[in-house]
Amino acid sequence: MSHIGVFDSGLGGLTGYRALRELLPQEDLIYFGDNARVPYGTKSREVICRYALQDTRFLLSRDVRAVLVACGTVSSNALELLQERFDVPFVGVVSPAAEAAVRIASAKNGRILVLGTAATVSSGAYEKAIRALDRSVRVASVACPLFVPLAENGHTEKGDIAATAIAEKYLRPYTDFCADAVILGCTHFPLLSDIIADVLPAPVLVSAGAESARAMAELARSQGFAQGSGTDAFFTSDDPVSFAENASRFLGRPLGAAVSKIDIETY
Amino acid sequence: MSHIGVFDSGLGGLTGYRALRELLPQEDLIYFGDNARVPYGTKSREVICRYALQDTRFLLSRDVRAVLVACGTVSSNALELLQERFDVPFVGVVSPAAEAAVRIASAKNGRILVLGTAATVSSGAYEKAIRALDRSVRVASVACPLFVPLAENGHTEKGDIAATAIAEKYLRPYTDFCADAVILGCTHFPLLSDIIADVLPAPVLVSAGAESARAMAELARSQGFAQGSGTDAFFTSDDPVSFAENASRFLGRPLGAAVSKIDIETY
Repeated sequence: MSHIGVFDSGLGGLTGYRALRELLPQEDLIYFGDNARVPYGTKSREVICRYALQDTRFLLSRDVRAVLVACGTVSSNALELLQERFDVPFVGVVSPAAEAAVRIASAKNGRILVLGTAATVSSGAYEKAIRALDRSVRVASVACPLFVPLAENGHTEKGDIAATAIAEKYLRPYTDFCADAVILGCTHFPLLSDIIADVLPAPVLVSAGAESARAMAELARSQGFAQGSGTDAFFTSDDPVSFAENASRFLGRPLGAAVSKIDIETY
Repeated sequence: MSHIGVFDSGLGGLTGYRALRELLPQEDLIYFGDNARVPYGTKSREVICRYALQDTRFLLSRDVRAVLVACGTVSSNALELLQERFDVPFVGVVSPAAEAAVRIASAKNGRILVLGTAATVSSGAYEKAIRALDRSVRVASVACPLFVPLAENGHTEKGDIAATAIAEKYLRPYTDFCADAVILGCTHFPLLSDIIADVLPAPVLVSAGAESARAMAELARSQGFAQGSGTDAFFTSDDPVSFAENASRFLGRPLGAAVSKIDIETY
């Protein structure tokens, strides 16, 4: 059991993978993106759970000793199910992001805004995690379903008219909420940081993917994972060429490793 | 074999279903929407073909004598494959829409603009169908990937700032093209007609879904299909309640029939 596995509905989880690679340069990492069924955030809990089980079974077939669930939708809807069903440790994005946001908000005005997919917001998982840490914090949550296709289609540059119009529509009603911290609760959302910060300039943006990577790095160190040789391996359920072409926007660098295609429906 | 089957990646095909129901009030119709894997238009041809085969196998398991492929992406990428593999007649959206647009353009300045998903535009299927009918027509095609999530998330009212900004970005470069007809090559796009017409007010908008329904009605009449009792049956691969809630926007009326859930991966 030599790898740490990371999965997401598509490319968004690469923002968490990138942070994990920086924190653990010597670990062998495996990434799976379910691009053939992306997005998850518009689908029902039942479908999200079925897909999460398949994604995990694939990673476990590949010699994985811990799994980073680098998908806000799966972390919010299926993390307990995965922990019940499998023996390896799982780290999701919800608790680490909630902890980081509560640290910020408790020292200021005690207000956190959560941005997520429809399935993430309707799960109430972030609110629950935040209230378990500090019952005095006020939380508001906003479903931002169009942020995922905007990020996937490259509408991410500061000033992009379409992305700005959508961000205004979602976030303008929350300027008076005066959040201390805004949780980017979907791993696609860090690509839209500049656009989000234009509408909500005051609060600190907390990347759920980056926080989960920190939690996974702590787990790896505390459990004394045998270090590997820092290899990357990428798998997708759709076209590997298209995955490689689009991945660099999320990873912040070229992939630097081959991408393999698998049939996720058989897991 | 008593029903006509209709399928799409999700809800968009209901715009074709609606037109078919109006043309054939006595036929028994079955609709399948693959909401657990929507959208198709951002995925590779190989994945689109695999999903199209499964969708068709499901319909054929339900006593279907003809299939309306009410999805621009499947019609552009997988119609020939379906026709080779199965014995029932298939009607896709590409040829009927191309015929309607050529009738309009040939009588005017001979210019057609095609709007579709990324997979539809990269297939070149509409251009091929148009040129087979009239080589003198000039065709331009634009991938409009964000139109699908905009329609699904209800950004469809005239004046919607986000939808208008995106339509401007996609279509403004084609105002000088002076199209006589604009093919709405994805069955989601008729919901955005008002917004598209704001940017391109001159040309006639051709709904690929409505044209395909006309072609299917002709086929049904020419083959003397035994008329049924006008029943509707709806199936989805995701949550039936959510399907029913969102379907009325596409159908223009409440569903008026039960929705059943199926596991499409088993077909």
